[in-house]
Amino acid sequence: MSKQTKPGTHADEVKKKAFKKLVSLGKNVYTQIEAENYPEFEMPLRSSSNIYYDQKMRQYTVGKRKVKRSASNVRHLKPFLQTLYVASFAARDLLEPGRTSTLRDLYYSSESALAKMFKNQSESDNVITDVEAVIGMAREDFNIFPDARSTIYGDLTVSFQDKKTKGKREINLTFNPDGQTIGPTLVKSDFVKTSADKVICIESGGMFQRLIEEDADEQFNAILVHLAGQAPRGTRRLIRRINAELKLPVYAFVDGDPWGVHIYNVIASGSAAAAHLIGLTTPDAIWMGLTASDITKYELPTDQFTKGDTVRTVQLLRDPRYQKPYLQEELKKFLKLKQKSEQQSLTSKSLTFVVDEYLPDKFKEIAKLKREGKI
Amino acid sequence: MSKQTKPGTHADEVKKKAFKKLVSLGKNVYTQIEAENYPEFEMPLRSSSNIYYDQKMRQYTVGKRKVKRSASNVRHLKPFLQTLYVASFAARDLLEPGRTSTLRDLYYSSESALAKMFKNQSESDNVITDVEAVIGMAREDFNIFPDARSTIYGDLTVSFQDKKTKGKREINLTFNPDGQTIGPTLVKSDFVKTSADKVICIESGGMFQRLIEEDADEQFNAILVHLAGQAPRGTRRLIRRINAELKLPVYAFVDGDPWGVHIYNVIASGSAAAAHLIGLTTPDAIWMGLTASDITKYELPTDQFTKGDTVRTVQLLRDPRYQKPYLQEELKKFLKLKQKSEQQSLTSKSLTFVVDEYLPDKFKEIAKLKREGKI
Repeated sequence: MSKQTKPGTHADEVKKKAFKKLVSLGKNVYTQIEAENYPEFEMPLRSSSNIYYDQKMRQYTVGKRKVKRSASNVRHLKPFLQTLYVASFAARDLLEPGRTSTLRDLYYSSESALAKMFKNQSESDNVITDVEAVIGMAREDFNIFPDARSTIYGDLTVSFQDKKTKGKREINLTFNPDGQTIGPTLVKSDFVKTSADKVICIESGGMFQRLIEEDADEQFNAILVHLAGQAPRGTRRLIRRINAELKLPVYAFVDGDPWGVHIYNVIASGSAAAAHLIGLTTPDAIWMGLTASDITKYELPTDQFTKGDTVRTVQLLRDPRYQKPYLQEELKKFLKLKQKSEQQSLTSKSLTFVVDEYLPDKFKEIAKLKREGKI
Repeated sequence: MSKQTKPGTHADEVKKKAFKKLVSLGKNVYTQIEAENYPEFEMPLRSSSNIYYDQKMRQYTVGKRKVKRSASNVRHLKPFLQTLYVASFAARDLLEPGRTSTLRDLYYSSESALAKMFKNQSESDNVITDVEAVIGMAREDFNIFPDARSTIYGDLTVSFQDKKTKGKREINLTFNPDGQTIGPTLVKSDFVKTSADKVICIESGGMFQRLIEEDADEQFNAILVHLAGQAPRGTRRLIRRINAELKLPVYAFVDGDPWGVHIYNVIASGSAAAAHLIGLTTPDAIWMGLTASDITKYELPTDQFTKGDTVRTVQLLRDPRYQKPYLQEELKKFLKLKQKSEQQSLTSKSLTFVVDEYLPDKFKEIAKLKREGKI
């Protein structure tokens, strides 16, 4: 069941679209100046009053309220200029020559400008988010990336432009048994083919290595993704693309505590901080465990819930992203149990318990929950 | 100038040696019991009174004082058993079946034992270090690894056993423009060939990506290593192996502050925590910058030294690992300047300044310092 995606380079299309939007922002400013008006532009308001959970999109999103940045308002002048600076840097210094940059690079890049453009990096980060909101595309689309720290392993062949030969290059993601870094190249690569029929996202590096070592990719026909805690946006985008383009279901295998469940839910439903963006969420992703029921069923080693764990669990119970019956049920069980377990606690049974018993059991259980309509 | 290493698999040799040492530890215990003696074993004392900087080895090392663990002493009984438990787990559950594990896995693995073997992970981590000291080999040699987070990029072809085909597989480390994860496989791989004539170790992910993007590997004939802050031990071992086996000089390109210099120095001279081990240091590694002189020469954006920065710099000045003239000189300049700069601050000149001017200048300067005997 090898799958082929349609021709056309994902990376090229994204680049063209972002470039066009950035240039159009600049052109509008020029047009307004030529018409002897104060230039202005609009973007969605990103404050919590304008962020809501969209049941149809199944993610956090921004409402209809807009903010205007106008050169006629002296209080707007600085953010107006900062936004155009970032937009121009992204179009001219990054997208056009084909360079990428980090949030930190962008901050430093402005230090050579005549006036100091940003007070500190948190100010420049915030303006980058404004540019995202103005053009409705993520910063990765205009080549601003966080540091890579997440990895992937499994039978998926991807293709991208080779740096050295400038030709197309294909790699299969089982190439290096330590996993492949999820960096800018991989996130924007084209999917060529896969024999996998699912994606398993794994919170900890130790468990990721364990699964590679036990050939879990073959046993479960799975692509394995190491999240390294809260998944970076590039990783969430790659997971979404695999789900959308290759139609593979996505499972999140995380620590058995409210923080683990939330790592799952940011993959599924997004974060408030990225509410102004689409293309990062995988609404059909399924939380696999460790569940509270797993902890008692397998008698796993546990730690006591802290006060913070309890408060967080109560918050999640009320969160619109946590309204599926099985999530509600398990969160309540956690509150009753007042115990948590890391996913690596499965090692207490044996090094191979996770592939011999835990995962096979879970896939059966999830199939049952689906039939019962609880997932 | 492609280089070939001698035949024989590095990974196999290390595995055999570690396995033999672990088994011999166990055999000695049996022999003593059969002779109706209380079993005991010895290891170097690891407290600071027995750790010194060895001028000849050019690293921290342990002195001649030993500690004995004897089953005849009731206070020794628990650590005695714990050490044998870890040694047995390493030999039988890891090396023999060819599995790897993390520090955390090892801690959990003992939870199924009849009695709870370790109070917490810091206790089991400590016993793992004891086993290192007993057999004089690093935990990576008996397949206990930390999470991978460091990456490498450059023209170096390595070979390792392919998981899927069980045959030999070669990869060139320019394969993925996002860099290759430095995990267990890569650290123990065999070096097949390289056209590089140096290694540049880079502190931040942003600068690492910048250098890949600007083809610094080709321009400077270099293998690029992303340290991700303080380099993990696997990364330090890989750097040492490239230096020792391929005879490539190693440069550390880090933030311009005492913490950056120290990242360099742990690569060069090791840490007190790993004083009982050899094979992790690269004594000839050179600190490239950012130096205090770079900060003034290039008028880089800076931050004020904090009190902690000052205290740390004064400590380093007295540290036996910091006695080279150029290190002393630059540390004193930092104290006078009371300013620090991140390596990414070079971006304030332009995105390509680092490859167009900074690195070429530095290589000339280092050559000059070497001629003057300051490095």
